[in-house]
Amino acid sequence: MPEQHALPVTRAANFAAWYQAVVDQGDLAEESGVRGCMIIRPWGYGVWQRMQELLDRRFRDMGHENCYFPLFIPLSFIAKEAEHVEGFAKEMAVVTHHRLRMIDGVLKPDPQAVLEEPLIVRPTSETVIGAAFSRWIRSHRDLPLLINQWANVVRWEMRPRLFLRTSEFLWQEGHTAHASAAEALEETLRMLEVYRSFSEDMLAMPVVAGEKPPHERFPGADHTYSIEAMMQDGKALQAGTAHYLGTNFARAQNIRYQTETGELAFAHTTSWGVSTRLVGGVVMTHGDDDGLRLPPAIAPRQIVLVPILRDKPEDASVLEYCEAVARELRAASAFGEPLRVAVDRKLGRSVDKRWGWLKRGVPVVCEIGARDVAADSVTSIRRDRARKGERIDMASLKRGEFVHGAAALLADIQASLHGEARARMQANITDIASYADLAAYFKDAEESESFRGWARVPWARPQGPELAAVEQQLKALKLTIRNAPLDQGAPVTGRCVFSDAPARELVLVGRSY
Amino acid sequence: MPEQHALPVTRAANFAAWYQAVVDQGDLAEESGVRGCMIIRPWGYGVWQRMQELLDRRFRDMGHENCYFPLFIPLSFIAKEAEHVEGFAKEMAVVTHHRLRMIDGVLKPDPQAVLEEPLIVRPTSETVIGAAFSRWIRSHRDLPLLINQWANVVRWEMRPRLFLRTSEFLWQEGHTAHASAAEALEETLRMLEVYRSFSEDMLAMPVVAGEKPPHERFPGADHTYSIEAMMQDGKALQAGTAHYLGTNFARAQNIRYQTETGELAFAHTTSWGVSTRLVGGVVMTHGDDDGLRLPPAIAPRQIVLVPILRDKPEDASVLEYCEAVARELRAASAFGEPLRVAVDRKLGRSVDKRWGWLKRGVPVVCEIGARDVAADSVTSIRRDRARKGERIDMASLKRGEFVHGAAALLADIQASLHGEARARMQANITDIASYADLAAYFKDAEESESFRGWARVPWARPQGPELAAVEQQLKALKLTIRNAPLDQGAPVTGRCVFSDAPARELVLVGRSY
Repeated sequence: MPEQHALPVTRAANFAAWYQAVVDQGDLAEESGVRGCMIIRPWGYGVWQRMQELLDRRFRDMGHENCYFPLFIPLSFIAKEAEHVEGFAKEMAVVTHHRLRMIDGVLKPDPQAVLEEPLIVRPTSETVIGAAFSRWIRSHRDLPLLINQWANVVRWEMRPRLFLRTSEFLWQEGHTAHASAAEALEETLRMLEVYRSFSEDMLAMPVVAGEKPPHERFPGADHTYSIEAMMQDGKALQAGTAHYLGTNFARAQNIRYQTETGELAFAHTTSWGVSTRLVGGVVMTHGDDDGLRLPPAIAPRQIVLVPILRDKPEDASVLEYCEAVARELRAASAFGEPLRVAVDRKLGRSVDKRWGWLKRGVPVVCEIGARDVAADSVTSIRRDRARKGERIDMASLKRGEFVHGAAALLADIQASLHGEARARMQANITDIASYADLAAYFKDAEESESFRGWARVPWARPQGPELAAVEQQLKALKLTIRNAPLDQGAPVTGRCVFSDAPARELVLVGRSY
Repeated sequence: MPEQHALPVTRAANFAAWYQAVVDQGDLAEESGVRGCMIIRPWGYGVWQRMQELLDRRFRDMGHENCYFPLFIPLSFIAKEAEHVEGFAKEMAVVTHHRLRMIDGVLKPDPQAVLEEPLIVRPTSETVIGAAFSRWIRSHRDLPLLINQWANVVRWEMRPRLFLRTSEFLWQEGHTAHASAAEALEETLRMLEVYRSFSEDMLAMPVVAGEKPPHERFPGADHTYSIEAMMQDGKALQAGTAHYLGTNFARAQNIRYQTETGELAFAHTTSWGVSTRLVGGVVMTHGDDDGLRLPPAIAPRQIVLVPILRDKPEDASVLEYCEAVARELRAASAFGEPLRVAVDRKLGRSVDKRWGWLKRGVPVVCEIGARDVAADSVTSIRRDRARKGERIDMASLKRGEFVHGAAALLADIQASLHGEARARMQANITDIASYADLAAYFKDAEESESFRGWARVPWARPQGPELAAVEQQLKALKLTIRNAPLDQGAPVTGRCVFSDAPARELVLVGRSY
């Protein structure tokens, strides 16, 4: 019986183990030996760097400027925030010493080098950037102030998972200040839309953009918006957030400006971010039982040519042919950039190399042997539909035809991955009208271990103790509210599934990462 | 009497204060309030991001792959290195707790959340990358392994200075492993050459590439090479280093591979890096008493158009004209990339905006008023020679002529900044043949506070106690050996200035940052 998949475990058998296998065999990341911190391996970093490039260009085109703020935040800054912010998280790395010393032959933190004030490794930079904003902003002429930072941040994780939840991760955090609430809210939604379109168009990852309910807001925010993606196991991944912070941070940090009429007013601020978590989202959106499948727009290499070498004199002509095809491909463009093409000249069997690239998710993998050279043809595998039945599906085209059609092929793969994921998401959002049905729906799913996705339910948007009661109802089902989609469709009618009060909007509920 | 310079202090009056003024008024960086950590402001980060882009492209074209390794290194890794490495520096940030807790109303490191093993914030990543290499490398087929990382690192600084010496800084660290000493040494010198040519061609910053003497080596290296740049106060700035680490780290970290004949052998490793310190180097190489002057290849904006607005209806046509000129300019290329052009539409007086951009070092600043629109002309200031006598030197050209000549103008500015700096460096390297002359030369310089640069002296390349004696002799003059230039010119003759033994090579000595 032929082997049906390249990974040692399938999605159906064990989704968590499958994820781990894709990340491992796709050269994406590994455990570092430092609790909760990962090593991002070359291919994984290449994907992240592509995401960075594409997002950075968008941010800059919109007028944001990159800065870099310190890794360390004095404890007093954090304490000030803690006073202002309920639900303040405290799992942070604390630096207490600035020197090591050999004491009785053992290297230790030097007791003589205790910091006067402990430093916190930034979990996010609102406090330190807010302090800078309060120095930088004097007049309405200084507004809007549009800043972004690419950085590492640390939030201590007790149950880390590569990319999805790591103690250290890489991200960008945008921070902006505005003269009015309307402008700041507009910026917040503008950046949410950047994330939405980036996810859909570049990551081919369908998402629902919406507003988080009050209890899921970023601490200190007036409104928190998110994009939520559906993974293949039906769980939600919060893939990006944008916060309208009102004047809360401005008040805590004294970010004030002189208005045109000469008064002092607090600025309205926003923050927004996405992280290396997106790489995990791409894996769980597009991966199959042969490994990763990468949307061409973010693939570090879009086409890899594997020469079939036989340790014979004709090897030279095979290599030469591959390089010639690669050159021709690189002269073409897809998604507004030259094609990213590599010839894999490393030592090793071509079949191993082919599988290495397929597991990494390279959109098009070509195997070129002496026969192709003789026929002036290119044999290729389209990663998004690598198999026909159980066999690998290889197409052979005349070289000119392949080169000429390469950009269109990549565009088609991008669209096809997106279409597949979008259809799956749409098929797995179910409208449910009562709490009993909701409970039954997810209980069923649990018992049958079958994929159920999310439920869309009407609710009354309660506050205070009523909201706390809803949280408890959901907790009992291991569910959370993901968001209230910005696109609500028709006007909401019916009753709240939690309180039976008249419904005010639809929210998505589901299990999540 | 007219004001002769835009900064409050000149290089001649107080070089250190002048540096601070350029960094401050050029929007490059500022103190963060966290001891030794800086905030890199938008323009400064823009310069660094340009450097990153240019270097990253070079590294990748040469086959290096980017990875990301953890910020934290377990104390035991560091202790292992300390055992192996003499001269091991111990000024590091030590994380001892992973949680904060409110205790009697005060936020403190939680005594219940003490880490079992303290974590060190990476000062450099040899240990953690070496541990990964020992896992990744099995066979000669895995070599060479060529890795680079862009990251922040922390080395506690008691006397910090923006960009030049900060507790946290941004850098890249390349780490490679090879099968043979020859190949690893070749890689080391290849990367040194990348740094040299990058400094000369992109930063327009002349440097001398050479080998560090044994006592200035990176701890654990067999050979350390550097590029040394001469600042306008005559001091040396070590602007980049490349280390051949022999098998020292491989032995400490068990990085072994199976050879073609099946034996186990230790890999030969290298590391190499440049940092945000380069931004400080550019300031002190090219800045003048009006602020920064940026080489066009690394200027975030190469040409800025400042519209002269008068709050009148014709303002619209001035703005429109500026945007049209900008569009035409952006269609041109310099240094293989489209021109980076901005129209400064911010509120404010055009003369203030002009000075803002001149202080930031924008290579070409244009001021466009209604008169230019009427005459279809462009009035521009070339930043590298902004003044004729005491007056700002403005040139007016027909629009077509200006646009057509813009790329050549930028190339000329790049060459001119480089030529000026190169001439200064060459004029300030003095051959000296005895210790007495060396002492007199630098004593003179001290008394007259005059610019003296470096001395080039023959030495016998001593080892052990003799080398320690040389160190003392140099220390008495506040000098260090910068490096032994790779380009030694004619065969070395004469006697060592320190020991009177027969000389073996020439070394550069000077004061340094």
